[in-house]
Amino acid sequence: MRYIIIGLGFFGSSLAAKLTSLGHEVIGIDRRSERADELKDKITKVMIMDCTKQNALHALPLTDVDAVIVAIGEDIGSSILILSMLKNQKVKRIIGRAINPMHQHILSELGIEEITHPEEDTATELSAVLMLKNAVNTMIVNDRIIIAELQIPEAYIGHSLEAVNLEERFGIRLVAVKIAPAEKGLSSFFSKDYQVDLAGDPHRLLGQKDRLIVIGKLDSIKRFVD
Amino acid sequence: MRYIIIGLGFFGSSLAAKLTSLGHEVIGIDRRSERADELKDKITKVMIMDCTKQNALHALPLTDVDAVIVAIGEDIGSSILILSMLKNQKVKRIIGRAINPMHQHILSELGIEEITHPEEDTATELSAVLMLKNAVNTMIVNDRIIIAELQIPEAYIGHSLEAVNLEERFGIRLVAVKIAPAEKGLSSFFSKDYQVDLAGDPHRLLGQKDRLIVIGKLDSIKRFVD
Repeated sequence: MRYIIIGLGFFGSSLAAKLTSLGHEVIGIDRRSERADELKDKITKVMIMDCTKQNALHALPLTDVDAVIVAIGEDIGSSILILSMLKNQKVKRIIGRAINPMHQHILSELGIEEITHPEEDTATELSAVLMLKNAVNTMIVNDRIIIAELQIPEAYIGHSLEAVNLEERFGIRLVAVKIAPAEKGLSSFFSKDYQVDLAGDPHRLLGQKDRLIVIGKLDSIKRFVD
Repeated sequence: MRYIIIGLGFFGSSLAAKLTSLGHEVIGIDRRSERADELKDKITKVMIMDCTKQNALHALPLTDVDAVIVAIGEDIGSSILILSMLKNQKVKRIIGRAINPMHQHILSELGIEEITHPEEDTATELSAVLMLKNAVNTMIVNDRIIIAELQIPEAYIGHSLEAVNLEERFGIRLVAVKIAPAEKGLSSFFSKDYQVDLAGDPHRLLGQKDRLIVIGKLDSIKRFVD
């Protein structure tokens, strides 16, 4: 697929590099010329231009791409200006980024339907992680229910899922078991080379570095890990 | 619980406000004095000080709090300096923030075990969302498997889960159904006031604004939404 990403700060450049590495064609745009040098090997194409200028924006292949993402953060004024100009063009999909509730509100008012908020979302998820000892990742389902990826609580290492009995004892449901790779320790907070057991073999013994992904009430999950 | 959050940019202030609103005691610290005014009603306590000065850092109740989070982003030097000083103190839990792989690498080398990366994580998740029409939220399980929150594909609105038959036809598993609140439209990308059906009633008809949370291979989920 083809994407245009406007604003190559931490978030925009991470996203552009990620999509490029996944085999997509990404045009990344920033008005700071030093970004081109830093990112030229990571993003399909980097262009230096100021998209708040209507001429510049119209020079882009807006109608040819699958989505235009405005990843600008700090400069709320430019974000709003560019998104409102995009709204009047034929663009298949527009994604905005909001850095605070006021910004989010203005973008919604402009009719931007897809809004991402990296800081806000991670803050929400990290606050759940902080309350749950052992949680390494969470997804908020609604006010009370979360999906959490948990390290195995000390007391259950070497026990089987059947013995732990998550559903009956804690009222939480297993979504998947992540089985740690055999070699060395974890190097990252969100490690990706785990094997995944979706069936949740009831007899396999839980290893120290395995992880459980569960869904349930925050309170119930807290009771399990505490 | 009690937290110290150093650095009140978008991410640090979102996190501090979130934890305060959840009833925790949060000391938020920044060296920019204007942050105190803006945030004083949202965070238990805001202090203006420069934590790169050893004296300032030592004046904080580091041993009394459940975690110290260094949320500084742009100023990588300060982030590293403060985290390395914290590492030599008796602190229950230290959480760092990395804005790019180099930053992450240095923090790992310093022995910081919990590192959060708002931009990187949201970029990873958004790249999955971009590839999946209909996805509003995702959690990466491993290289191939994700948990995704999906809008109901057009073709299945008004059908029952039994008729959709996710498991047999697409090889993906239902985690939960989010039932849309009766009133007006969606106001936010990640709406929280949905009812959650964990049992996945096979006979209820899927509404246009309901959501499905599923787990499976990215390719299989793509096949379902396309």
